[in-house]
Amino acid sequence: MSAQQNASTSSEALPSKAGIVVFPGFEPLDAFGPIEALYTLSNEFKLDLYVIAATLDPVYTGLNDPQLNKAGSHFGVNIVPTHTHETVPDDLEVLLVPGGAGAAAPTVAPTVEFIKKVYPKLRYLITVCNGAAVAAAAGVLDGKRATTNKSYWTMLTSLSPNVKWVPTARYVVDGNCWTSGGVSAGIDVTLGWISKLYGEERARTVANIMEYEWRHDPNWDTFAYVFGVASA
Amino acid sequence: MSAQQNASTSSEALPSKAGIVVFPGFEPLDAFGPIEALYTLSNEFKLDLYVIAATLDPVYTGLNDPQLNKAGSHFGVNIVPTHTHETVPDDLEVLLVPGGAGAAAPTVAPTVEFIKKVYPKLRYLITVCNGAAVAAAAGVLDGKRATTNKSYWTMLTSLSPNVKWVPTARYVVDGNCWTSGGVSAGIDVTLGWISKLYGEERARTVANIMEYEWRHDPNWDTFAYVFGVASA
Repeated sequence: MSAQQNASTSSEALPSKAGIVVFPGFEPLDAFGPIEALYTLSNEFKLDLYVIAATLDPVYTGLNDPQLNKAGSHFGVNIVPTHTHETVPDDLEVLLVPGGAGAAAPTVAPTVEFIKKVYPKLRYLITVCNGAAVAAAAGVLDGKRATTNKSYWTMLTSLSPNVKWVPTARYVVDGNCWTSGGVSAGIDVTLGWISKLYGEERARTVANIMEYEWRHDPNWDTFAYVFGVASA
Repeated sequence: MSAQQNASTSSEALPSKAGIVVFPGFEPLDAFGPIEALYTLSNEFKLDLYVIAATLDPVYTGLNDPQLNKAGSHFGVNIVPTHTHETVPDDLEVLLVPGGAGAAAPTVAPTVEFIKKVYPKLRYLITVCNGAAVAAAAGVLDGKRATTNKSYWTMLTSLSPNVKWVPTARYVVDGNCWTSGGVSAGIDVTLGWISKLYGEERARTVANIMEYEWRHDPNWDTFAYVFGVASA
């Protein structure tokens, strides 16, 4: 019996096409936490990754923003997109949206437009950190429960008052929108998503291979307390 | 008073040049967990990143290995090196070595040679997962205490009998070699390294911004028990 047949899912076919949309100044772990979990899964279940950006030019994780980068460091990595906003396949099923300093920069505008355009065709949207603010700017979280990072909570949530922001949550699921807290929380939301579609045992196996302490209670959120937003 | 002046370090200057050596089939989170922590640090402390590979061609995280990739997925990301093994600056101070399926493939050989060549000039070597096996193959861990991932413990450690392998450890420090357990443990070893050089408060701040549950006890290791190597 193949691993596919073991998955405790509904009769609906498992997704095989996942994308991540990147933009200058995306947060490295926002992207590569979920990518690690899905890569591990993809050894057992057919899943292809589409790396999507405005153009096919490499996309840098850093931003030359002296406000943020006070030390004048050059610390980032260029990753290579496989598809543009225009060439991504029509049947993309899952879209990951990372956050990062670049999610708050004007250069994120084409990403917002892309999410607006592609969301109606998606089966699942997963956001990490202030990737939720990018999705919210596209209007796709209006009226939905969602969360984002806790260190910039007040600023981020005030930008999108039509979203029902949940302050104490590692991640939140509303309909097909899976939104998570800051940075590392992207790993938990992805494991939660794997658990829902492929079964808890599979998600546990992925977490163990990653030697990651999976928080599979979406309401666990130490960082809401660290940053004083738990009662917001 | 600048953040630099607050660092609780010895009188020795803080490092400003860190590199990561990559090879085909490196594990995404092995690289981008430490990169995230150091990127966050680099906003306050001058630290540049060198992405090092055999050539300047993009390096793919996946491997086309049907033994590993049972589902025939195409799930990986290409990252762009900034330097080759030959062009990396002579005064590189810190080297990160990720693991992954590619760390066990013949294509890792030039990386082993590079580590052998560069190690004597380094101030710090940090390995993640079976990146320790790559460093061990270069001989730089001989006679030292070290750890690696727990899911392939017996196979990995038997390859390098001259290393004093520590089975129950999130990470191990021996001299200037910082080795960690599997995948996510790379975040903890990097936070531990930040704590040592920049002070525990700075490491805690970085962990909080990452919304990461930092395990700052290097002896904590649930996964040694999960994979039954705790008594090895």
